[in-house]
Amino acid sequence: MNGILYTIYDVMENTAGRRSRVFHVCISVLISVNILLAILETDPAILEQYGDLFAVIDSVSLAIFVGEYATRLVAYRASPDYSKRRFALLRYALSPMMLVDLAVILPFLMPFLAVDARVIRVLRLLRLFAVFKLARVSEPLRTFGYVIRSKSTDLALAFFILFIVLMLASSLMYYVEREAQPEVFTSIPAAMWWGVVTLTTVGYGDVVPATLMGRLIGAGVAVLGIAVFAIPAGIIASAFTEIR
Amino acid sequence: MNGILYTIYDVMENTAGRRSRVFHVCISVLISVNILLAILETDPAILEQYGDLFAVIDSVSLAIFVGEYATRLVAYRASPDYSKRRFALLRYALSPMMLVDLAVILPFLMPFLAVDARVIRVLRLLRLFAVFKLARVSEPLRTFGYVIRSKSTDLALAFFILFIVLMLASSLMYYVEREAQPEVFTSIPAAMWWGVVTLTTVGYGDVVPATLMGRLIGAGVAVLGIAVFAIPAGIIASAFTEIR
Amino acid sequence: MNGILYTIYDVMENTAGRRSRVFHVCISVLISVNILLAILETDPAILEQYGDLFAVIDSVSLAIFVGEYATRLVAYRASPDYSKRRFALLRYALSPMMLVDLAVILPFLMPFLAVDARVIRVLRLLRLFAVFKLARVSEPLRTFGYVIRSKSTDLALAFFILFIVLMLASSLMYYVEREAQPEVFTSIPAAMWWGVVTLTTVGYGDVVPATLMGRLIGAGVAVLGIAVFAIPAGIIASAFTEIR
Amino acid sequence: MNGILYTIYDVMENTAGRRSRVFHVCISVLISVNILLAILETDPAILEQYGDLFAVIDSVSLAIFVGEYATRLVAYRASPDYSKRRFALLRYALSPMMLVDLAVILPFLMPFLAVDARVIRVLRLLRLFAVFKLARVSEPLRTFGYVIRSKSTDLALAFFILFIVLMLASSLMYYVEREAQPEVFTSIPAAMWWGVVTLTTVGYGDVVPATLMGRLIGAGVAVLGIAVFAIPAGIIASAFTEIR
Repeated sequence: MNGILYTIYDVMENTAGRRSRVFHVCISVLISVNILLAILETDPAILEQYGDLFAVIDSVSLAIFVGEYATRLVAYRASPDYSKRRFALLRYALSPMMLVDLAVILPFLMPFLAVDARVIRVLRLLRLFAVFKLARVSEPLRTFGYVIRSKSTDLALAFFILFIVLMLASSLMYYVEREAQPEVFTSIPAAMWWGVVTLTTVGYGDVVPATLMGRLIGAGVAVLGIAVFAIPAGIIASAFTEIR
Repeated sequence: MNGILYTIYDVMENTAGRRSRVFHVCISVLISVNILLAILETDPAILEQYGDLFAVIDSVSLAIFVGEYATRLVAYRASPDYSKRRFALLRYALSPMMLVDLAVILPFLMPFLAVDARVIRVLRLLRLFAVFKLARVSEPLRTFGYVIRSKSTDLALAFFILFIVLMLASSLMYYVEREAQPEVFTSIPAAMWWGVVTLTTVGYGDVVPATLMGRLIGAGVAVLGIAVFAIPAGIIASAFTEIR
Repeated sequence: MNGILYTIYDVMENTAGRRSRVFHVCISVLISVNILLAILETDPAILEQYGDLFAVIDSVSLAIFVGEYATRLVAYRASPDYSKRRFALLRYALSPMMLVDLAVILPFLMPFLAVDARVIRVLRLLRLFAVFKLARVSEPLRTFGYVIRSKSTDLALAFFILFIVLMLASSLMYYVEREAQPEVFTSIPAAMWWGVVTLTTVGYGDVVPATLMGRLIGAGVAVLGIAVFAIPAGIIASAFTEIR
Repeated sequence: MNGILYTIYDVMENTAGRRSRVFHVCISVLISVNILLAILETDPAILEQYGDLFAVIDSVSLAIFVGEYATRLVAYRASPDYSKRRFALLRYALSPMMLVDLAVILPFLMPFLAVDARVIRVLRLLRLFAVFKLARVSEPLRTFGYVIRSKSTDLALAFFILFIVLMLASSLMYYVEREAQPEVFTSIPAAMWWGVVTLTTVGYGDVVPATLMGRLIGAGVAVLGIAVFAIPAGIIASAFTEIR
């Protein structure tokens, strides 16, 4: 009995074997379908037409998730980790991944709770992070982690300078434009919205300088936006070149 | 006879010799002219003025393409490949490039088919890929292929994270903005349009957050857009640096 | 007495010790709070609600800044630097950081001066640069300085070419579009606003070419915008790769 | 006499000595002032106020440019190059830089010619390229030239693929959106304007897809825009890394 339980636990928790991979892909597909439904059902037209189908898929998914959670918890007792540490089961149940799984099945466990069902469904997005445990994914992820960590001070400084530039440019822009466009540049926080949109070269066009001075400052900020992209790109490129 | 046929086939299929290069450049120019016409004739004003000229060029091009296709097929029988494999001619006729060529001359072969002529003309775009067979082009293309393949897991992970960020940001934005702009942020899919436009720093400005919380999230997403460009640029730069 | 004074001076001026770090973090937090207030109080709604609280925080901050400045000046006399050079105190008082500190406490020292209080508060932003003296920050900053300096001619040339392209494209655009949109492309300086917004890929959409020729030039400029980002990114990436 | 003439020629043509550098900087400043005027005088308000001053500066500049051109031509006869080749003076006068100089002084030489004075003034922009002869500028310029040349096939292929993607996406978008927005997506060339604006992440917002299918294609094109920046940036970064 313990052998079977342990095998189940192994399939569910490890990611190396073939059976394990099949299990994780199936669960990932189910989660993806759930997220897709959670996204699509916010569209009233779609909800009206497919609402009943969505409710069925939702109930089936919830049942599977509850079953999976229970199995995982029961099977854990057969694992070698169980006897090694005190309160092992509690520790396991309180691990981040198990808490996410618990949150996802909350509406089943506590139907009396008036939690907005949509919030729960968005929460399921977090379960997707389980994909990161897969071997094929975890290796490049480690590369990313190394790149970010090895260049963290450089990147942090770049963002710190970006933030100071943003505050200086937005303050300046506010004082320059508030007379010409008092209903647009109402305050420095409003001007910072312009600043972020320009420095990141998004450029919605909802807040745009109109005076000559404002346009000169705006042009300078737009050109600084080149540095905003070039410096992090350069830092990250050098990190990826180093790790080969 | 076979010698001449084989020479013709060699000119048409290989890309190394000078005669072959001349042939491919001529055909490429003809294809380009055809594509240009297909693009320009969608403009009613241009079509009215130059419609007759366009029809003539179209007919001549079609005749050349039909002739080229037939020659290629006939000349193939003189090639050494023909006797090597069973159903060699059929295999050859079903090769991707020959199928594209066939599709392009479809309206000539089956005039009774009511296929929209414009679709066919856009299809001619695919013939441009024949350029990739040219030696001068195929070498950098191999470099590109190597870069993409050697970094495919890194790039796939970057796009997977981008997609999760997109879904999280769009879901958040929808719940934050739907009260202030119910006719713009109608659903999470609609908010995802905003999310893509912002994360890629395109920033059309047709969907823009208006509330304070919305703008804070929007600023965060715009700043994340820097990473969206810096990480793939860094990965690709390191790959190009490695292959030298 | 001198020993204590020197210890205080050491804590305030150096950045290596633990006590020094605590002091600098505290002052940085205070400065950040002050900047946040300076930004928020430009919003009339926030000012009305929290104006009194802001005034209190402002007065307390000013008192701390005055005390800090005075302590720094007095304690300097106990430092070994004081006896080494002539006019040492004056030189110290005229150092950039001390002048910034002085400007920040100006409204306290000269209440009769009708300086706009908001300008002073924005000035406090400059005090944030003191963060650059911290050891953890100064090392990556030196890296940045090296990168910029070692590639300064390359970067300057890139911006010089960018500027010539901008002037040529904007002049062209002006002559092409001024008849179709005389109230938008009023002059070459106005067209240069379009040029900067397009070359940096910000793309507000407030100035957009409408004629065929204008759109062709605009497309060319937008594609050149790729080079505008790729060249500095490439230069900076190579510099970061070299310094490892 | 010849010695003095040769010295003058040397100062004007070479860029190594100190006197030469002073001369080139003075001429560059004069050219820059002229270009600034040419840009500013397109603004009717500025022209009205400073028109007389501009006319004076213009006449003085023209006189200097004519004098410089004549001096250069006369002094050339004293240079060692003069006797070396046949038609040396003619060859010299027809060199690109001398032709640009000639074009700039055209309105002085042929006042009867009704050439638009503004065109001439914009032409002066070309004289700025003389800066490229300066030693401090010519070295990084050679670096740029090497980078572009050594990666020309890679970059050309990247732009060729970009162009095919642009044509495919724009054709698709035209067929998808023309029914929903017949007055915006009037033809494939009009859709290509949208395509360029999106692929380069400029995103003016004057042409935006409105249908679900259109937005899906638009999202795909926007994401492809990441590659449009990342691939050239990566290629150029690797070239700059190689040449160190």
